[in-house]
Amino acid sequence: MKIGIFDSGLGGLTVMKEIMTLLPEEDLIYFGDTARVPYGNKSAETIIRYSHEIADFLMQYDIKLLVIACNTASAHAMQSVQEQLPIPVIGVIHPGAAEAVRVSQTKKIAILATRSTIQSQAYQSAILNLCPHANVTPISCPLFVPLVEENFLDHEATKLIIREYLKPLTQDVDTILLGCTHYPLMKSRIQEEAGSVNLVDSATTCALQVKHLLTGKNLLSKNRSMEPMFFVTDDPDRFQHMMKQFLNLSTVDICSYAIPRSNFLAST
Amino acid sequence: MKIGIFDSGLGGLTVMKEIMTLLPEEDLIYFGDTARVPYGNKSAETIIRYSHEIADFLMQYDIKLLVIACNTASAHAMQSVQEQLPIPVIGVIHPGAAEAVRVSQTKKIAILATRSTIQSQAYQSAILNLCPHANVTPISCPLFVPLVEENFLDHEATKLIIREYLKPLTQDVDTILLGCTHYPLMKSRIQEEAGSVNLVDSATTCALQVKHLLTGKNLLSKNRSMEPMFFVTDDPDRFQHMMKQFLNLSTVDICSYAIPRSNFLAST
Repeated sequence: MKIGIFDSGLGGLTVMKEIMTLLPEEDLIYFGDTARVPYGNKSAETIIRYSHEIADFLMQYDIKLLVIACNTASAHAMQSVQEQLPIPVIGVIHPGAAEAVRVSQTKKIAILATRSTIQSQAYQSAILNLCPHANVTPISCPLFVPLVEENFLDHEATKLIIREYLKPLTQDVDTILLGCTHYPLMKSRIQEEAGSVNLVDSATTCALQVKHLLTGKNLLSKNRSMEPMFFVTDDPDRFQHMMKQFLNLSTVDICSYAIPRSNFLAST
Repeated sequence: MKIGIFDSGLGGLTVMKEIMTLLPEEDLIYFGDTARVPYGNKSAETIIRYSHEIADFLMQYDIKLLVIACNTASAHAMQSVQEQLPIPVIGVIHPGAAEAVRVSQTKKIAILATRSTIQSQAYQSAILNLCPHANVTPISCPLFVPLVEENFLDHEATKLIIREYLKPLTQDVDTILLGCTHYPLMKSRIQEEAGSVNLVDSATTCALQVKHLLTGKNLLSKNRSMEPMFFVTDDPDRFQHMMKQFLNLSTVDICSYAIPRSNFLAST
């Protein structure tokens, strides 16, 4: 039985990569709703509907666990999908928030995320639920996703933009939570600018949670039986290109992955 | 009778601004399909369907002319919409291409645009149709739109990114065509980096074409009868904020514009 992973687009591939590293014997199936990305500016109702559509689709592939590797869908649709599916569902928000609270000494935590994730208050609420006296500094970083997707990571401009976004940080913030699935790809650059703070990313923490849950339920796979499967709702070519960047699978023959173009969810 | 203007999002506001400046007595109605932006990664069929939906909606408001202030929709849906509507339709591609060919001495022309516009070959074809011996350098600049929308225009990082994108330019290119409705807002910064070349933007040239057409058909309005109307399919608040930046209407009471939330096109 497989692990199903979905995101509105490409970002969830960082979560997939961490799961592949941590649990190399698991069979994985990824769904990127690239025709309808981004979810951030859509209503909660719409996002819930999309998430159910995708969950139902992945259930046909005999999955034992669903990972909602999308911040917006985790924030809005997690509970609804969890209630409907007969299998466990893991999102990216709670694991990241829990780890940030765990590692922070000062409990002064900054959250870097997209504007819509910050506005949703999802990480802020999750942190404050776990640690009511935490002091949270939310920072919207809308340029990070395009900088990652355009492969400007090593550019001087990216350094300046990171520096700009980190300006609101005060000295007593000892932990930065990267609340966007694209940001793990910028982790080392952010660390360079942020200095000696804990950097927690929700991809790594989500993968650890997957391992923890599967271990607890005795559902770990012993042998991988297939190559990862990928579904996208639009533009497989671009996805394939980005997959290389996100998954860093340069030694694996990525091009031979079949990417079925799933039309059932064509952008309507 | 009004002029209808539509775009997939906010960018078309630069076209609207030029029309307001050039033809202050015209009544304008703007439609931004903000729930389904961007169009760039959608199929031609989908874009044609969206464009017809929006054209039909605007026709109910008694428009005398439709401006497709969206590069993707201009490239894919212009002809189809033109064939169906009983009123004239103007896009952004042809006017920009024609002006670039007119002002260029060397006929070596660079096009700056989003990746999808460059890939559509729309500007390249339009220029080569007008001037078969033109030498066209297409440059995708996917970071420009987020830099504009995040108000990083005056940031040092923007200067570095412009410089990066202009690297492929050779000395004999004497004209740069800004093939994206967001780019007029970066015009002065691009000019600073590009030096003494002609900068042609499709917003200004499209507005001139509107004036030319209405004059020729004797359809110019003598008195404006209403404030501009705005329709968006999602997130009116963000739109209102950006409208100030795009239209630079700080002396006008923008907040009093009613922005009806058009649900008939909710992101499905």
